[in-house]
Amino acid sequence: MFEAKGRVEIFKRIVEVISVIVSEVKYSIKEDGLHIKAVDPAHVAMVELNISPKAFGEYSASDTELGIDLDKLDSIIKLGKGNDEAEMVYDESSERLVVKIGNLVRRMTLLDVASMPDLKIPNLQFPARIELLSDDLLLGVRAAQSVGDYVVLTADSESFELSAGTQEEINQKLSKDQLSLLECKGKARSLFSLDYLSSLAKGMRSGEKLTLLLGNDYPVRIEFDILEGNGSVAYLLAPRTEIE
Amino acid sequence: MFEAKGRVEIFKRIVEVISVIVSEVKYSIKEDGLHIKAVDPAHVAMVELNISPKAFGEYSASDTELGIDLDKLDSIIKLGKGNDEAEMVYDESSERLVVKIGNLVRRMTLLDVASMPDLKIPNLQFPARIELLSDDLLLGVRAAQSVGDYVVLTADSESFELSAGTQEEINQKLSKDQLSLLECKGKARSLFSLDYLSSLAKGMRSGEKLTLLLGNDYPVRIEFDILEGNGSVAYLLAPRTEIE
Amino acid sequence: MFEAKGRVEIFKRIVEVISVIVSEVKYSIKEDGLHIKAVDPAHVAMVELNISPKAFGEYSASDTELGIDLDKLDSIIKLGKGNDEAEMVYDESSERLVVKIGNLVRRMTLLDVASMPDLKIPNLQFPARIELLSDDLLLGVRAAQSVGDYVVLTADSESFELSAGTQEEINQKLSKDQLSLLECKGKARSLFSLDYLSSLAKGMRSGEKLTLLLGNDYPVRIEFDILEGNGSVAYLLAPRTEIE
Repeated sequence: MFEAKGRVEIFKRIVEVISVIVSEVKYSIKEDGLHIKAVDPAHVAMVELNISPKAFGEYSASDTELGIDLDKLDSIIKLGKGNDEAEMVYDESSERLVVKIGNLVRRMTLLDVASMPDLKIPNLQFPARIELLSDDLLLGVRAAQSVGDYVVLTADSESFELSAGTQEEINQKLSKDQLSLLECKGKARSLFSLDYLSSLAKGMRSGEKLTLLLGNDYPVRIEFDILEGNGSVAYLLAPRTEIE
Repeated sequence: MFEAKGRVEIFKRIVEVISVIVSEVKYSIKEDGLHIKAVDPAHVAMVELNISPKAFGEYSASDTELGIDLDKLDSIIKLGKGNDEAEMVYDESSERLVVKIGNLVRRMTLLDVASMPDLKIPNLQFPARIELLSDDLLLGVRAAQSVGDYVVLTADSESFELSAGTQEEINQKLSKDQLSLLECKGKARSLFSLDYLSSLAKGMRSGEKLTLLLGNDYPVRIEFDILEGNGSVAYLLAPRTEIE
Repeated sequence: MFEAKGRVEIFKRIVEVISVIVSEVKYSIKEDGLHIKAVDPAHVAMVELNISPKAFGEYSASDTELGIDLDKLDSIIKLGKGNDEAEMVYDESSERLVVKIGNLVRRMTLLDVASMPDLKIPNLQFPARIELLSDDLLLGVRAAQSVGDYVVLTADSESFELSAGTQEEINQKLSKDQLSLLECKGKARSLFSLDYLSSLAKGMRSGEKLTLLLGNDYPVRIEFDILEGNGSVAYLLAPRTEIE
């Protein structure tokens, strides 16, 4: 059983955050909220999303798993404006997800969740923790696109650095006092695919506070809150092996 | 003889309304205004447009027929801003349409009107009459685009409904109290090509009051006023035969 | 030696003005400012740009020649907003141009200036001098695009005129009192490639005061100031021979 009501913006933001990783996903719906875990087809990037019932105006649910085609869901949600009221109901008898926006009703078929196993997000320990504004990361990622295919993220006790390119080079250095938080034991340095990082960046919006967790030749975990703190997102991106 | 002056917006809106149906058209100009009737090449959609001399700042005309290439006319009109003053004069000696916008003068060749016979718009009786805001129709049409190629319009004494799709389904129901007017004897239901209906929708703007005239397996007629009530538009769209 | 600081807008406008002619260019940097001369690969259009040190917040330079790939420079500059602070420094040891925007640092390789000979802009005498607003020229050029490939510029003691097309025709006539200045001995008339003139138009912005220097079957020279008068641009465009 699943019924949720709220501003269109809520449903939109959820699709936005997930669709940078996958186009088909399982919505795991429980009394305590909506939970989504997904990994991209190449198993390089993962996302974990938890939305509290408080994000919605109304929410009532018992354990339900829905296989969602995100493009299809987006095609109806995007017709609403951010503050329009939307409603999402699972119709068990017809096995359809019913999405209402204003006077529009969309009845969507669902994907088979049997082929969507539960994903286990690895529980990692990170030597470095950096808090920064999304705008800084988005700027660095965009700048990197003009010089190469990889991005190096580095942190030590004094600064966090994003760099890319060798002959042509960009570098973005944020010192401790330009960051909300910088905790780093020793030095952390890992290299990532710019394509993947650019995709993840599309799931972020301007003005969001990010927490980056970093290690040595290790994945990066990027956490941020959405929907006025009623939703939490974590992206996990595997490192690339450095080619010298 | 034909001379008309007025805001660029007037000439622009006329092209906008007609060009969703045809790219070449006959402007029938009379003392009592500008009259255009056109049918698309496949004879599925028609438009009838009447513009009163009051729409213009200045207007003087005797019976004149001009064969207009709408793309060509649009290419000059779009250079003006909505409130710029424009002028359109038929130069009989050179057989050119002279369009002035600010300090620009465009002399346009005309098409041969001999190959543009007068069109007769059929005078139909419709069992249902619905008044609604263009925004509602535009929303329904856009939503339908994600589920299929056809749209079903239905009316009875209680509501008007737009629906599309079978497996994947959208439905937009407007009850009597959500409509400015609903008159329907019995039940009216017809199916239309979404492509055509989407084209017609491009001739409408947000905030326009539409009158829909509907029947059973019958054309739909969509009427609305433009240019502060000094112009009236009617689209007529043939139904599609339902394939079960 | 070269170091310059100032709003991103300054560096952006310089690239904008030059890149309509060439994609690779030599920045000739002197104590008295930045000087650029370039000709397009077909030797039809030239640009001369002089920027005073006053355009920048800070400027210090001794004779330096930098071979710049404008696309590459643009890819970093466009990441800044107009009023962001930018900095450009030539790092002699690494032979890199270092561009800083906020916390971003881009180190750019340079092109070999040995293959970029000094260009001599011909010193021409023009019988006609016209001062007009860029918006008028931009409008005429855009209108011409719907009728043909050539533009004729004409001036006499009474008016300046831009016209294009033969069968389909556009004409833009500015009389003496619609121009800031009109000086013309006899009659001046030259024909230009619309493609080239459209390109040059992209280097101009709305609201700029242009000086057009014109002759008979002769180049046109278009001069305007940028960066609050701290930069001056001159485009020189060769005429096309008229085909009757």
